[in-house]
Amino acid sequence: MGFGELDQKAINTIRLLAVDATFTSNSGHPGAPMGMAPVAHVLWNNFMKFNPKNPKWLNRDRFVLSNGHGCMLQYALLHLFGYDLSLDDLKAFRSVDSKTPGHPEAHDTPGVEVTTGPLGQGVSNAVGLAIAQAHTAATFNKPDFTLVDNYTYCFLGDGCLMEGISSEASSLAGHLQLGNLICVYDDNNITIDGDTNCAFTEDVSKRYEAYGWQVLDIEKGDTDLDAMQKAFEQAKAEKNKPTIINLKTTIGYGSLQQGTHGVHGSPLKKDDIKQLKEKFGFNPEESFVVPKEVSELYGKHASEGAAAEEEWNKLLASYAEKFPKEHADLTRRLKGELPEGWEKALPVYTPADPAVASRKLSETVLSKIIDVVPELLGGSADLTGSNLTRWKQAVDFQPKSNGLGDYSGRYIRYGVREHAMGAIMNGLAAYGTIIPYGGTFLNFVSYAAGAVRLSSLSQIRCIWVATHDSIGLGEDGPTHQPVETLAHLRALPNNMVWRPADGNETSAAYYVAMTSKHTPSVLALSRQNLPQLEGSTIEKAIKGGYVLHEVEKADVTLVSTGSEVCICVDAAKYLKEKHNVNARIVSMPCFEVFDTQSKEYRLSVLPDGIPSLSVEVMSTMGWERYTHEQFGLNRFGASGAYKDVYNKFEFTPEGISKRAVATIDFWKDVPNVRSPLNRAFQQII
Amino acid sequence: MGFGELDQKAINTIRLLAVDATFTSNSGHPGAPMGMAPVAHVLWNNFMKFNPKNPKWLNRDRFVLSNGHGCMLQYALLHLFGYDLSLDDLKAFRSVDSKTPGHPEAHDTPGVEVTTGPLGQGVSNAVGLAIAQAHTAATFNKPDFTLVDNYTYCFLGDGCLMEGISSEASSLAGHLQLGNLICVYDDNNITIDGDTNCAFTEDVSKRYEAYGWQVLDIEKGDTDLDAMQKAFEQAKAEKNKPTIINLKTTIGYGSLQQGTHGVHGSPLKKDDIKQLKEKFGFNPEESFVVPKEVSELYGKHASEGAAAEEEWNKLLASYAEKFPKEHADLTRRLKGELPEGWEKALPVYTPADPAVASRKLSETVLSKIIDVVPELLGGSADLTGSNLTRWKQAVDFQPKSNGLGDYSGRYIRYGVREHAMGAIMNGLAAYGTIIPYGGTFLNFVSYAAGAVRLSSLSQIRCIWVATHDSIGLGEDGPTHQPVETLAHLRALPNNMVWRPADGNETSAAYYVAMTSKHTPSVLALSRQNLPQLEGSTIEKAIKGGYVLHEVEKADVTLVSTGSEVCICVDAAKYLKEKHNVNARIVSMPCFEVFDTQSKEYRLSVLPDGIPSLSVEVMSTMGWERYTHEQFGLNRFGASGAYKDVYNKFEFTPEGISKRAVATIDFWKDVPNVRSPLNRAFQQII
Repeated sequence: MGFGELDQKAINTIRLLAVDATFTSNSGHPGAPMGMAPVAHVLWNNFMKFNPKNPKWLNRDRFVLSNGHGCMLQYALLHLFGYDLSLDDLKAFRSVDSKTPGHPEAHDTPGVEVTTGPLGQGVSNAVGLAIAQAHTAATFNKPDFTLVDNYTYCFLGDGCLMEGISSEASSLAGHLQLGNLICVYDDNNITIDGDTNCAFTEDVSKRYEAYGWQVLDIEKGDTDLDAMQKAFEQAKAEKNKPTIINLKTTIGYGSLQQGTHGVHGSPLKKDDIKQLKEKFGFNPEESFVVPKEVSELYGKHASEGAAAEEEWNKLLASYAEKFPKEHADLTRRLKGELPEGWEKALPVYTPADPAVASRKLSETVLSKIIDVVPELLGGSADLTGSNLTRWKQAVDFQPKSNGLGDYSGRYIRYGVREHAMGAIMNGLAAYGTIIPYGGTFLNFVSYAAGAVRLSSLSQIRCIWVATHDSIGLGEDGPTHQPVETLAHLRALPNNMVWRPADGNETSAAYYVAMTSKHTPSVLALSRQNLPQLEGSTIEKAIKGGYVLHEVEKADVTLVSTGSEVCICVDAAKYLKEKHNVNARIVSMPCFEVFDTQSKEYRLSVLPDGIPSLSVEVMSTMGWERYTHEQFGLNRFGASGAYKDVYNKFEFTPEGISKRAVATIDFWKDVPNVRSPLNRAFQQII
Repeated sequence: MGFGELDQKAINTIRLLAVDATFTSNSGHPGAPMGMAPVAHVLWNNFMKFNPKNPKWLNRDRFVLSNGHGCMLQYALLHLFGYDLSLDDLKAFRSVDSKTPGHPEAHDTPGVEVTTGPLGQGVSNAVGLAIAQAHTAATFNKPDFTLVDNYTYCFLGDGCLMEGISSEASSLAGHLQLGNLICVYDDNNITIDGDTNCAFTEDVSKRYEAYGWQVLDIEKGDTDLDAMQKAFEQAKAEKNKPTIINLKTTIGYGSLQQGTHGVHGSPLKKDDIKQLKEKFGFNPEESFVVPKEVSELYGKHASEGAAAEEEWNKLLASYAEKFPKEHADLTRRLKGELPEGWEKALPVYTPADPAVASRKLSETVLSKIIDVVPELLGGSADLTGSNLTRWKQAVDFQPKSNGLGDYSGRYIRYGVREHAMGAIMNGLAAYGTIIPYGGTFLNFVSYAAGAVRLSSLSQIRCIWVATHDSIGLGEDGPTHQPVETLAHLRALPNNMVWRPADGNETSAAYYVAMTSKHTPSVLALSRQNLPQLEGSTIEKAIKGGYVLHEVEKADVTLVSTGSEVCICVDAAKYLKEKHNVNARIVSMPCFEVFDTQSKEYRLSVLPDGIPSLSVEVMSTMGWERYTHEQFGLNRFGASGAYKDVYNKFEFTPEGISKRAVATIDFWKDVPNVRSPLNRAFQQII
């Protein structure tokens, strides 16, 4: 290849931008950028294909910084290659409302593919991006029309490797034989607690070989650019295995404290920076310097990327002629639009239809829309038969060689790997051609909390099919019965939690989940059968909350979700019969969507003047925003047949009625009972 | 060894009990018990040391069923060996309020060491139990007084191995060279989704070798009892490595559906049971049969265990004479009592003391009590310098060979492995001689949600030192700033969340956390400095909520926690000055403890007649139970210097005052404003 002085200057430019930015913000992590600058230079300038002027070009190579604390490396690269990220943006590193936050955020910064920082997420996102590439290629590429052949590159550190999520994702990536995934492990022997030998002495190479990866080693990761060049070539040449390159580096290379955790999470001292700049041949009096020849070098590569995209656009144009249907499908997907009229496939129910578990109703929705919405890519964390996430004709996403499917398959066998599934879904969605959904028990969405949070933060549309949503799962018992989970997920900003009560509400949940481009959804679905309710429609349910059953001179409003709505219906009858009490019934399948309705509408559902009681078999936390009193389960459940468990905790028409009467009684002395929707001031949302 | 017919009969007895119980309850998992009965027989009858009459004997071998869905295996063994678990208990399998719930629960069933079922937890608990054994041995054993030399045995399945938490825990176990840990992997090739080849094709043996484990293989796991005998002997002989035995088994061995996932999670059919009983030489007309000779065989082993304990008690008695101090310490620990007067070591502050971050206040508490409470065993998930969890003279818990500490060390370097840390703490606490605490950022407690939930469910005292508890962490940004986490953890039953506002409250948090034997705690601690408050005392704070600042003719109550309390103090001054408003201030460091106070006390803190406003820089969810209005952050935070972030979201005296005025205004027309503590009926807790 012939690396020379200019390469070294470019590398040192990256290093010093990271040093200057962390010094200026007096915060951040210079060590990893300084150590990984050489490999970043080789990768970005010699291998990566991208057009900084169009960061969304489909066939760009994806870059993921899984050790996201080293984000000044990524910001420096994005700036130097000409993305919309100025030197002033770098100077504003880690300041409020800058485009350069403390960890990379995909929705903030052009060129950042996924939001990273929480360790292990990025590498798992990268697996998702690689699956998405393989699937998109298998779906759209045609002879002579290789529309999609990009690679996914991922940098990661010791922390990522220690996190269990990376084990889950890496094991799956090996199984799936993702040759398009190339990772670089920054093997610098340093973590926050000091030397890795205090906690992390496993044989990483052997572990990745066990997963079925190609493992390459680079001993002189600070200097041996030729070895890096060769390693990436070798990685790209291996088509049936993901590759991990173990790159021995010196954290904070060049600093007086290099090789210690002193350079991990704190800016360098003034003197140290001075000697460093001198050593690198830079003026120690200047900061944020980009030598002209470095700009030119990287500008040249950027132009090549722009030219490559132009070529690709031509290819796409001729693809449009030869494969108009596929072309239309692809371009529609890239715009983030759903197929016109897709929603007509959503099933509609009447009260005459039989009682069905909402997990089964979800299966029906999926079966109906799966052909209409080809970008749906499903899966389950080894609970397919329980989650009912697989449609009959599904082909598995598998390497051809194992005979169980192929890459055009739209159903992923995630294995018992909830956390990786969540992060992989984030990667799938970030690729741009896929809407992912994944199944597990609601209780085990908690295993994936780290990834779910990042779906919300990075505004990703992915759908959790979270079945067995309560004590209603019965015999498996408290270890599997969520009680705190909905409160947790409802407290998460920009996340929709749906708990549909019947078929129409299940269709509504999917409708809103699918059409919300920037918000993930969790669908909490029952194991047990639920009747089709009188008064439910898709149109009403998509408002998040609505009056299922209105009465004149109402004494109380019963507000409920999911499997408890039908018990409230019976409770209303019981109340009339035994207590001459008039109960309205409100079904509230989704708080977050209800919150976005007009106040007028919301007050028509939960009006002033009538005390209200919520009924849900889990933590009452969060219900106080909507109702005056709450009937729930602020304890763990019990193992037993589901009806026995419901009886034990009095979630019966009698049990609800008793509390409804108490509610009426308690509020009867308060004149003009005010709806809890009335608030003194607006929340910060 | 000479295994014979009686052994086979014992094995088949176990199998059939599992078959009968799942058939009777029409629910449960017969496959794993049938496949693992042979190895269970060899282990329990030939290796395990225990006394069924005293399931809490310290030096018993620990048994953990990580594939907890196979719990009928464990229940059958417990019954057969004479634990307090009757045949009627087995017949009540999976029914409400039985001692035989759908997954093993430690607080329900004598002989169950830890609560398992959520996959991957058990094996990680086992690592904790093994660490606890090694530490207890290093602390209390003396020449000629081997008080503690038990092993920890763990059965696990494919699901456990796929879960990331098992990777984390296993990597650490290898690093720590835990020769006292012996795992048996039920390698049956079957998961819920079918054959493991659809998602799990990694080389498990190689992976565990990479972790530094001894790996043993048994090809004929259904029949080759001699190989099992030999493998356990070999495992016990290896003192410096944990062992995993890869045992090839046939799931549902003997069933017409053996070897398929049809026997994983559903009872066998009647006909199948009939042929099975005939094949095993049992009467097909009878159920729940225990042949007399099997009872006698197992009874003999149980008697040997009882005798072993008797011997041990003699050893302990003579230990008491020779090492009275150590003996007193050990027996005190086993009773679950803290050293008398330990709480005098808790630091007390006055307003004259300087402002200090509560993470630093926590460090001070730990430094003061660490010598007084020798059962405290700390650690951090690679954030020691940030969590401030390590005291100055700490010795690390490390294998002697690496020169970084020894097994008597009381500080664990967990690595970046939050989920494993949580589960390991559960195991440490379950051993009986240790109170564990572990540090990470509050945001990353979510990575461990699965384990935290099981601490709560199984009533385990462990303490999370969860620092960097809000947007107050500043520059790291929204990826690291919790907003939903406290709502999540507060919604979890039997879990205490503390967010202390100053030094006295930090001491109070530790006091209650340490003295609550059956409840875990999460201490949410600030990165930024907090002043010592006028009006705070340990005595007040241990009530969970108290009046920090009372005023006459109060117009409003400001209720807050942690770092926002001192801003409320300033807001109260601002309100008086600018608006002539009288604001009371309530500090509420722990909801759950406050909830346990008398209603009279609670109403004295949050009285009728005064509108209240909560102030906390995170999700407002949950605050509606205590206050009329809520000022919080129902969105993600921002990256920037912490004061800038607080200003951005108006968590300033001005911002609070504005909302306090709005609150007063909004509630002024309501006569006799009722405290939200008044409710129509009691919650189910």
